[in-house]
Amino acid sequence: METPPQNTIPARRGVAVPMLAGQKIRVVNTHGSQVLDTWAVARPGAAEWLSMEHTRSRNTRWDVRPGLVFVTNRRRPMLVLEQDTVPGHAHDGLICACNREVYRELGCEGFHDNCEDNFFAAMAVVEAPIRHLPAPLNLFMNFPIAPDGSFARVAPASRPGDYVVLRAEMDLWMVFSACPQDMTVVNGAARRPTDAHYQVF
Amino acid sequence: METPPQNTIPARRGVAVPMLAGQKIRVVNTHGSQVLDTWAVARPGAAEWLSMEHTRSRNTRWDVRPGLVFVTNRRRPMLVLEQDTVPGHAHDGLICACNREVYRELGCEGFHDNCEDNFFAAMAVVEAPIRHLPAPLNLFMNFPIAPDGSFARVAPASRPGDYVVLRAEMDLWMVFSACPQDMTVVNGAARRPTDAHYQVF
Repeated sequence: METPPQNTIPARRGVAVPMLAGQKIRVVNTHGSQVLDTWAVARPGAAEWLSMEHTRSRNTRWDVRPGLVFVTNRRRPMLVLEQDTVPGHAHDGLICACNREVYRELGCEGFHDNCEDNFFAAMAVVEAPIRHLPAPLNLFMNFPIAPDGSFARVAPASRPGDYVVLRAEMDLWMVFSACPQDMTVVNGAARRPTDAHYQVF
Repeated sequence: METPPQNTIPARRGVAVPMLAGQKIRVVNTHGSQVLDTWAVARPGAAEWLSMEHTRSRNTRWDVRPGLVFVTNRRRPMLVLEQDTVPGHAHDGLICACNREVYRELGCEGFHDNCEDNFFAAMAVVEAPIRHLPAPLNLFMNFPIAPDGSFARVAPASRPGDYVVLRAEMDLWMVFSACPQDMTVVNGAARRPTDAHYQVF
């Protein structure tokens, strides 16, 4: 495995990363089994955000694959998925971020770290934070869907060092949450959330 | 065809309908080819809303079929799809509401009625309107998806008088927009948006 980029998305935590139009970000699944809930918010003003439902409409696709153009709620191109080394391009764009209630359903009695709270914590550094949680792009989340309408929750298909490259089409904040899910296998059979890494170039 | 219920969702317009927990609403595709973008907002306070991404997660399904329990962003049961007479249960839960930018992409130069603006107009009667647009449930919208990741935009599978029955699990506002899309076939090959009707019982 190559040396990962120095910028860390700490296990169980969220970060916001500023980018300028034309910059790219390499997002590395350093240990291979970490789902990253991912959002993008336009700068300045946060009046637009990455909309998964508009992205599906614009591309006439429900899946996430190289070349996909992610658009805002105002249909402006925001990000392009330029590279993806994950076998089968196994990412999810259909499912919510986890929140406190998800862990309560799973039997957790106290507070549990979660991607929704991580999103709003990451918003603390953003000049004009948004007040609602858009549906996320779940990088490295492996949710194969079946023709009968069901889907499966299985461990990531990615390997240590697998990565994606996203190109920013406007000035924006990327927001990542290293998903703290340790009660199901979505972050791997070991159920141990890990750090991930990124590099803007 | 039976006489439709007296309450009208006017062609190209939105309405908000208050319901109490335990009440049901029959939503009738009176002319058979009208898509209804549909939302639900909890009362009072609008701190919760129907979340399609949480509904998919809670049901481990991506499709919409009888028995489905729609949940809020706080995972509380909100609506149950009790009946559905549409052949193949052809509804969509993956795609955005249309907005001004969608019609601009299609070549419309001036303003065009759209479901996003209809939602916010309907909010005018709600005591605590929500400020962002949740992803809609698109009743009667026929978007068959393919295993290769694509989907198709085709005319509704519903017939005149087809209907769904939704049961409210909490006090809420239903919001419907009779989709004004007249530049594609999603509202039928005639591209002529029509009224629809509903009855609360």
